[in-house]
Amino acid sequence: MSNLDIFVGETSGTAMLILLGGGVVAGVVLKRSKAFGAGWVAISLGWGFAVMVGAYLSAPKSAASLNPAVTLGLAIQGGIKWSDVPLYIGSEILGAMIGAFLVWVAYLGQFSAFLTDPQVLAQQPAEEGLVDQKSAPNAGPVLGVFSTGPEVRNYWQNLLTEIIATFVLVIAILTQGLNQNGDGLGPIGILITSFVVVAIGLSLGGPTGYAINPARDLGPRIVHALLPLRNKGGSDWSYAWVPVLGPLAGAALAGGFYQLAFA
Amino acid sequence: MSNLDIFVGETSGTAMLILLGGGVVAGVVLKRSKAFGAGWVAISLGWGFAVMVGAYLSAPKSAASLNPAVTLGLAIQGGIKWSDVPLYIGSEILGAMIGAFLVWVAYLGQFSAFLTDPQVLAQQPAEEGLVDQKSAPNAGPVLGVFSTGPEVRNYWQNLLTEIIATFVLVIAILTQGLNQNGDGLGPIGILITSFVVVAIGLSLGGPTGYAINPARDLGPRIVHALLPLRNKGGSDWSYAWVPVLGPLAGAALAGGFYQLAFA
Amino acid sequence: MSNLDIFVGETSGTAMLILLGGGVVAGVVLKRSKAFGAGWVAISLGWGFAVMVGAYLSAPKSAASLNPAVTLGLAIQGGIKWSDVPLYIGSEILGAMIGAFLVWVAYLGQFSAFLTDPQVLAQQPAEEGLVDQKSAPNAGPVLGVFSTGPEVRNYWQNLLTEIIATFVLVIAILTQGLNQNGDGLGPIGILITSFVVVAIGLSLGGPTGYAINPARDLGPRIVHALLPLRNKGGSDWSYAWVPVLGPLAGAALAGGFYQLAFA
Amino acid sequence: MSNLDIFVGETSGTAMLILLGGGVVAGVVLKRSKAFGAGWVAISLGWGFAVMVGAYLSAPKSAASLNPAVTLGLAIQGGIKWSDVPLYIGSEILGAMIGAFLVWVAYLGQFSAFLTDPQVLAQQPAEEGLVDQKSAPNAGPVLGVFSTGPEVRNYWQNLLTEIIATFVLVIAILTQGLNQNGDGLGPIGILITSFVVVAIGLSLGGPTGYAINPARDLGPRIVHALLPLRNKGGSDWSYAWVPVLGPLAGAALAGGFYQLAFA
Repeated sequence: MSNLDIFVGETSGTAMLILLGGGVVAGVVLKRSKAFGAGWVAISLGWGFAVMVGAYLSAPKSAASLNPAVTLGLAIQGGIKWSDVPLYIGSEILGAMIGAFLVWVAYLGQFSAFLTDPQVLAQQPAEEGLVDQKSAPNAGPVLGVFSTGPEVRNYWQNLLTEIIATFVLVIAILTQGLNQNGDGLGPIGILITSFVVVAIGLSLGGPTGYAINPARDLGPRIVHALLPLRNKGGSDWSYAWVPVLGPLAGAALAGGFYQLAFA
Repeated sequence: MSNLDIFVGETSGTAMLILLGGGVVAGVVLKRSKAFGAGWVAISLGWGFAVMVGAYLSAPKSAASLNPAVTLGLAIQGGIKWSDVPLYIGSEILGAMIGAFLVWVAYLGQFSAFLTDPQVLAQQPAEEGLVDQKSAPNAGPVLGVFSTGPEVRNYWQNLLTEIIATFVLVIAILTQGLNQNGDGLGPIGILITSFVVVAIGLSLGGPTGYAINPARDLGPRIVHALLPLRNKGGSDWSYAWVPVLGPLAGAALAGGFYQLAFA
Repeated sequence: MSNLDIFVGETSGTAMLILLGGGVVAGVVLKRSKAFGAGWVAISLGWGFAVMVGAYLSAPKSAASLNPAVTLGLAIQGGIKWSDVPLYIGSEILGAMIGAFLVWVAYLGQFSAFLTDPQVLAQQPAEEGLVDQKSAPNAGPVLGVFSTGPEVRNYWQNLLTEIIATFVLVIAILTQGLNQNGDGLGPIGILITSFVVVAIGLSLGGPTGYAINPARDLGPRIVHALLPLRNKGGSDWSYAWVPVLGPLAGAALAGGFYQLAFA
Repeated sequence: MSNLDIFVGETSGTAMLILLGGGVVAGVVLKRSKAFGAGWVAISLGWGFAVMVGAYLSAPKSAASLNPAVTLGLAIQGGIKWSDVPLYIGSEILGAMIGAFLVWVAYLGQFSAFLTDPQVLAQQPAEEGLVDQKSAPNAGPVLGVFSTGPEVRNYWQNLLTEIIATFVLVIAILTQGLNQNGDGLGPIGILITSFVVVAIGLSLGGPTGYAINPARDLGPRIVHALLPLRNKGGSDWSYAWVPVLGPLAGAALAGGFYQLAFA
């Protein structure tokens, strides 16, 4: 695996992950989208399959990590060399930014319609059961397409939720290789990992929107801050550390638990 | 398989099962969760994938039973030694308690918001199509995140439903190994078992909430009773024997039918 | 494969199919079920996974046909001996009757609550998007849990829909074995067949409720006629020939097309 | 692979794709269908599984392309000979026309009921979250069962969305073969491709209805223009070039990216 392979694999795979993951949120929460109001099952399936497509693109080139937290877990376990970690993480953040930009391109009409809607300008409707920003007064409704935010804002509680959810992701990835007939990064292993992500979304996504991936949250947040969208609202930087630190802590715990109980 | 392996495998796997299974119920029924109102498809998929993740964690160490009823079925069939049964069951109940505690941690903000909501304190709204406790006057709405309860309370009818649903689970697990190219506890076998659980949820979960697992119901019920949650309501101990006895009876019937027809 | 094997495999597999398939309809359309109102995605997934569980039970013993139309298609193709066809079909109808009876047992409380509900007795509410019997004035709302009925009643149109839907089922089953690495009745082949049934439900189930299986419709209709349920309504025998003849005709067409184009 | 094989494989496979894909839209958007109102998750799953069934039918005979854009991508990559491309594309358009005709046959009653409904004749209700034609004043509501249309009509934006969505489809198909243990057109490869299509529907289908396939859009549009349906509305020919050109451009980009980064 050359440095170029890692760069191409992680950048293109993470861009695909965020294009499809951000895309499903855009489709479900923005009006004048055919998927508008499709709900949390759509979002959970969408993110799960986003991991699947991203990993298939990435697996021929790199470890298909697509996630600095997974990179950290694999480094603790030995699946990724520590000296490659910075290249992985940098490529993942760059890919996430490219993906977020492409979501904006694919949903240009919806963003335009939303951001010029007089009703939206007057007030921000709380869509029941969907990404609800009412607890984040400084976050605009568009931000939910890019980055995560909590329903009940309490940084330490939110951090705990992200730690638990990422622990599940990383321990599932690490133990998968141990199963009988496991094909690791082969098609079935990738499919199963994508169902693990569906599971995390359904079961642990409710409180914070399950970043479980620092690049997935930070890259699109930077793009949100940079894009020249009128009325887009703030980028909620006061929360931005939670979906970075929580996933890294959860991954470290999972890596440690793996070394203790399974290695 | 050492005793330590069985302990680690069953405890960690069942904790994972209940964290994700209880989590999807919390996400769907508690307000201020992004998954609020996502409905029964979300809950059925969530519990199915919870089995998948729990079993992948457990399979490298133990029989990935995660369920005293399945343990009983496998003991009848010969897949688990009778002398290991107490260790399996004890580990499963302990794991279920850990998982239920983690659900509470992950949804701290939602539990707090719910239990201090004046509307909730005044009355308990019946969410249409979701976990409805109106037939259990002594059960608080929070209990549904931990343990099961019937929609129409009639202990003998509820017992019959649990017996039928668990028969389906255990006979499906026992016969799976007979299929051509079956890989048993390999990745595909586990994936299929998780779809069996989705099927049971969709098709037989409506009346009682498909415990189909004594540890899944009893462990979290104990945690509900212990947790210092104000306004949490009763733990409905009068119903607690149904989701213990029903699954064990269903598993015994499935084990017997297997020995008669397939062994 | 002995006659006893065929009998046990087809009877138990079809019973399982109808228990889970009828069960998901009961769960979604009967009030005081936790799955009430879960909609057509739940029903389509439920029937698909019902095929999966039924086939896993049946495959170690028989051809896992579970369906006289599939039996006919396999007989035309050569996968089942013509002399075994009567035993297959008889076992399938018996199994479907057992399954329908078990649905009634599992949902006893819901049936009782529904059939004694004053509102139900006064009028039959049309649940939007669900099994709607308003076009079948002689069919009670309970019948939809047992047998299929058309939304727009026009026997020849309904027959065409059943022919097309069953053609899809049978040609998919027959051609599956041709695919590279196909494992036939192995776990993946069965899983894929169950997704084919999900596809038919989603795409072609809207007009008639996709019997696509004479035993699935006729067996439970007989049980509906026999069960001592007060206020259950008629068994709609005037429609009963459509979901028998349509699937058989569709299967014959699929068998012929297979022999012509693929054999 | 003879010319006859390619013709039979692509025609029958694409007919199946459009029968099931158009069918799920008909089921969800036409009244008096049991799937009415089942929403975008149903539509996305329905189209994904439509690809699965179509590809299983087609794979024993041809490259199971079912899509001129995929044919173009495979030709660039080398999987299909350039001299076979016209036969592939012609067969795909013919198959799509057959499939669209069969959707009309299967949903005859629903089309009749819809097109003679006084309420429909008076105005076209905008079904929230479903195929909404309010931005296409020259397109009747029936057209959505046959062909795609944008929610926000802006040809260049719509073209961009189709380019991005088709890029995802084609790069996923091309890279899939590279994955470890990949079985290409075997059962698992086809299943995964169908989940890729589910992913595209959920994540990128909102703005334009994800044609991502010139034959899928053009063939049914021709059938819509030809069918003698009273009150069917126009066929929206002014938009018809977008879902032809966009997918071809997206596929060419994906083929080029594949040659550059993965070949």
